[in-house]
Order: sequence, then C-alpha cells, then structure tokens
Amino acid sequence: MPVLDTSAALHRALALAAEAIGLSDPNPRVGCVILDADGQELGAGHTQAAGQAHAEVMALRDAAKRGRDVRGATAIVTLEPCSHHGRTPPCCDALIAAGIARVVVAVQDPNPQVAGQGLARLRAAGIAVDLAEETFADAARELNIGFFSRMQRGRPFVRLKSAISLDGRTALPDGRSQWITGEAARADGHAWRKRAGAVLTGIGTVLADDPRLDVRLVPTARQPLRIVLDPQGRLPASARILQPPGEARIIGPGRADLSTLLAELGAQGINELHVEAGPVLSGAFIDAGLVDELLIYQAPLLIGEGRPLAALSPLAGLADARRWRFVEATPFGQDLRLRLRPA
Amino acid sequence: MPVLDTSAALHRALALAAEAIGLSDPNPRVGCVILDADGQELGAGHTQAAGQAHAEVMALRDAAKRGRDVRGATAIVTLEPCSHHGRTPPCCDALIAAGIARVVVAVQDPNPQVAGQGLARLRAAGIAVDLAEETFADAARELNIGFFSRMQRGRPFVRLKSAISLDGRTALPDGRSQWITGEAARADGHAWRKRAGAVLTGIGTVLADDPRLDVRLVPTARQPLRIVLDPQGRLPASARILQPPGEARIIGPGRADLSTLLAELGAQGINELHVEAGPVLSGAFIDAGLVDELLIYQAPLLIGEGRPLAALSPLAGLADARRWRFVEATPFGQDLRLRLRPA
Repeated sequence: MPVLDTSAALHRALALAAEAIGLSDPNPRVGCVILDADGQELGAGHTQAAGQAHAEVMALRDAAKRGRDVRGATAIVTLEPCSHHGRTPPCCDALIAAGIARVVVAVQDPNPQVAGQGLARLRAAGIAVDLAEETFADAARELNIGFFSRMQRGRPFVRLKSAISLDGRTALPDGRSQWITGEAARADGHAWRKRAGAVLTGIGTVLADDPRLDVRLVPTARQPLRIVLDPQGRLPASARILQPPGEARIIGPGRADLSTLLAELGAQGINELHVEAGPVLSGAFIDAGLVDELLIYQAPLLIGEGRPLAALSPLAGLADARRWRFVEATPFGQDLRLRLRPA
Repeated sequence: MPVLDTSAALHRALALAAEAIGLSDPNPRVGCVILDADGQELGAGHTQAAGQAHAEVMALRDAAKRGRDVRGATAIVTLEPCSHHGRTPPCCDALIAAGIARVVVAVQDPNPQVAGQGLARLRAAGIAVDLAEETFADAARELNIGFFSRMQRGRPFVRLKSAISLDGRTALPDGRSQWITGEAARADGHAWRKRAGAVLTGIGTVLADDPRLDVRLVPTARQPLRIVLDPQGRLPASARILQPPGEARIIGPGRADLSTLLAELGAQGINELHVEAGPVLSGAFIDAGLVDELLIYQAPLLIGEGRPLAALSPLAGLADARRWRFVEATPFGQDLRLRLRPA
C-alpha cells in the first residue's frame, strides 16, 4: 500500500482548528480530518465549546453523517488525542471504537504529565501512530500557545497590545488617541482579543477612555472575560466595560500581585491573556518580565510630546534593556503590525 | 525581424547604474547595455565620476574593446541620453556616430526644460526610440531620486535617518546611544550615506557624540560632503567631522534658513541630502515639511525615558499630525528598516 501523503490534510486540519478560536476555550483549538486509503476525505471537524465534542468526535460524526465507513481509515489530528475522562469521554476511545487504522498527530499534548499517553493508548489498540513534520507541530503549538502556556507554566500566555506612532506615542499629552491607527489595525486588534480568554486593563484606562474592550469588529461565538485592576475601588458602576456582552471582573480594592494573578487566571482556564492598558500597568507587566508577546500597531505619523507605550523603570545602561525579537512586521492597512517575543 | 526582448537587458542596465552610486554624483546613475539582433551583449557600462564618460560612451568603448561591431545594434539606457554639451560631448551624438539602430530608454530626462530633446535628436538621426515599461521607469527614477529632485525642484531629496527603540527613543536621557541597533543596521546606514552628496548634522550632535559621519562600513569611491550647522560658532577645530577622508563645511555663525540652504545645496549639485541629527534639527526639518524620506532603524527594545527622534511643535489634535506612508518595513539583522515618505 503506498504511503498516504497527509500534508494537505494537515493543512486542512490546522485551518479547521483555527475555526475553534473564540469558541473552544479553555479547551485547545484542534482540527481532525479522516482520510480513506486513497486520500479522500471521509469526515472532518474541530473542537466545539467547552463540554461539547472534541475534534476527533466531530470528524467521526461528520463521516457518519456523510454515510462513510471509517474502518481502516487514517485520522489526522493537530493535537494528541486525549486519553482521560474530562467533561467528555476520551477521544482515543472514540477513534479505537470506530476502527481507525492510523493516526497522524501534529504535536503531542503539552502537559508533561500526560504527553504520550494518548499515543500509547492508540498504539496499544493496534493503531499505527505517526508524528507529523516539525513545521506542523510548530503551527499547532502556535495556534494553542496559550493552552501550552497554561499546561506547561500554569499561567496564561500574556500578549500586550498597543497602538503607537512612529515615535512610540500612544496618545497626545492630554490623552487623546482617536485614532492613531486605521480601521484595518483596529479590526485586527479585535481578532486578537477574540483569541484571548480574558482582556485585562487598568482603572486609569477605564476612567480615561471608558472602553468596552469586547469583541465587536470581528464575529465571535463568545466574549472574553474582561478584567479591570482597580486597587482603590474607583470603578464607576456605569462603566461600559461592566455592560454586556460578556462578563467583567474587578480585581480590587487592593493591589494585585501580577504573578499571583496570572497563576489564578491559569487555574481558571485562561489560556491567552490580552493586556490593553495604559503606560503604568503596561510598564508593570513589562518590568516584571511577564509579557510573552508585544502586539504593536505602528502608525505612520510622528506625535512628538505624548503618552508613552509603557512607563518603565529607568535603565542603568542600554545593555540592561530587555531584549526582544521581531516575530512579525507586516503592513496592515496604512499601519504596521509588529509582534515581538522575548529574545 | 523578431522583436528583441529587452527586459533582461534593462535589469542589467539598472544593476550597472546602481554601481555608479558613490561615484557619479552630481551626475545621475545611468547604465547602458548594447545588444545585437540576437540579444547578445556587445558592450555595457555605467556613468563614471563627474567629468568622465557617461554610460553610453562606456558601453560603446566596452564593445570596441571586445572587438564587437555595434552598427545596427540596440542600446538599452536607463535614462534619456543627453543632447547637450556639458563637461563631456552629448551621448546622443556618440550613439548616432556609432551607427546604433534602436535605443530603448527607461525614463526621460527629469529636467522639464530638456526632457525629450535627446529622444528627438536620436529620432531625427533615423534611430528607432522606445520607452520601456513603467516598472523600469520607476526603478530608474528611484535610483536617481535625488537627481530628479534637483532637476525638478531645485533642491536635494532629503532623507532623515534615525535609529530608535520600539518606543521611539534614540538614546538614554543622558544621551548614551551606543548601540541601540545592531551591526547590520549600522552598515546599512553607511550605504545610505554613500548615496548622498552630503551628510548634514547639527552642532549639538557634534559636541555630544563627535561623530565622523563619513562612509566607512561599506566601500565607496568618494565621500559625501559633511555639513555642520553651527549657528553660534561652537565647533571645536579638533572635531572628527573636520578630519579626512572627505570634506567638511560649517554653516554659521548665524542661523541657516533650511529652505534657502536646500536651494543652495541643490545649486551646488547635491542630489541626495542625508540628515543625521539630534531631535532639535530633525524636528526643524520635519516641522518645515522638508523631509522627503524617513529612514528609521527600529531596534527590538524598550527604553522608557529617553531622547526623542524629533522635537516637534505640539499638535492641536491628531488630525493635524503630518501623515506618512510606509514604503518599506524590512528585517535588517535583529532590527527593522523602515522607510516612509509623505502620504
């Protein structure tokens, strides 16, 4: 029997997995495609909302709905199938019961306590198991960067978003910032909020701008939790961030320790935390080394005097500056989208 | 006779023209390739130093040196051949005398007073003349953006260079700036200095950093003129900018009017002016609307408090900010190279 080329199916499974963004949290974004020996698709699916079916079960159901026989077929899955009983039965058991002959997995489970157990369970049932090429593993990991962070570090992946001018200003000296960036950048900012389990800001931003911080400019099945750090209890009940859609949580009165807060949010199932805050809170996250990614929309204008991206501790010298690396610099409408991670 | 495809020869002629960077100023960077009817190259060349041969003559000489007969051949030239006697005889006459049958020109002479005269002179001599596709015209114009500026506006193309952090800082509050950007960006900065007829800075930068502002990190046949604006006559005779290689000019005592200065530099044959200055002088150029291109190396670090790119007049509102457009955002070593022009 010729070896089935699963590259196209892996790409398709990753695209399906991406459709679980804004839907499956806190569960990972997973896609599954089932192929027959000729490479024809029998069924496909992705993770649903928490408590509902995972990708493998969705793909098996899809095949059943199409009236296709999956016995002896190959299942391509972007994440190692689960082997434990959570809110749903283990996906391994569903694949075994369906008579799947081979499983191709893009990446292993990020939880070191369970990594490989799903693969072992499949192999024990006589199923051939292969890992895909590293490029697919990278893509599957990237799609679930927050889930991996929570499983491996017990805390969310923290993405700090800012919109700045060429000279690094987020607003005029009096705080006016509408609009530094264009519509394309603003809509894209909502797409990144949608990825997040929670959007976090500070009381200063709420009092100054009264933002909603929900996902409006792109469609979504769920709204991220909105969190306000309010150490002095100044949040007015009329604040728009407290209004539907979506839930809001006030942390305070009292100053939150950011590391402790991240651990708590991790324990509560927040995979990606989207920080959209003023210079003081942004500076606190950056100075504490708690930012995993800077998401910066840079507009092609110079502001001169104005508000900084972050109020940082003074540097003793340039060698002491925290170093980042660009992972992206992409034109976005008239603006640039920059993403950076710690070097 | 089949129509000769001149695309490859136009690319080669443009590459030859680029070799005149750092050599031909104030003359334009021009390349010429002569092809026989089968598309075989008979000769090729580019503009030499001022007062020496232009591209067409170099290509004819090259063909002669190779022992090739150019009668009936096609000459591909990146700029309309000159029809006037300057320090060298007109190139049109050389092409006519050599018996060239057809000339393909990437772009017409930028000087509205003489544009088309070279083409007319060739046609009058019975030579077929064609203009290349717009994409080649754009490339030829871009290569000579300063020459076009001087011919059409009577002033140099002004490129303002800066190296900044993500948050738009050029230095720590005490002025320390070595090094924000990496080696690749610094060497590339010298390649842009090399393009310039003159590099301009202010006395503040000279007193603070004592820079040489010459071209060292890339090879060059000539050094740009170095200009220091020194309104109060504070330049010490020991300043490194006054030392060879290359010449230096002090503007002052007395405050220079920037527009007048640009007109003077244009009259003196400066095609591209490279401004590498502190925030005050940079701000003056930007506020006056005299900057044609921002060349910014952006390093992946946050500095916090520090020196700004430019000290600009306060904005009444964001709508009053001068708008630019990104023409480039390219990774350069660990940094980004951004280029912007007025929107």
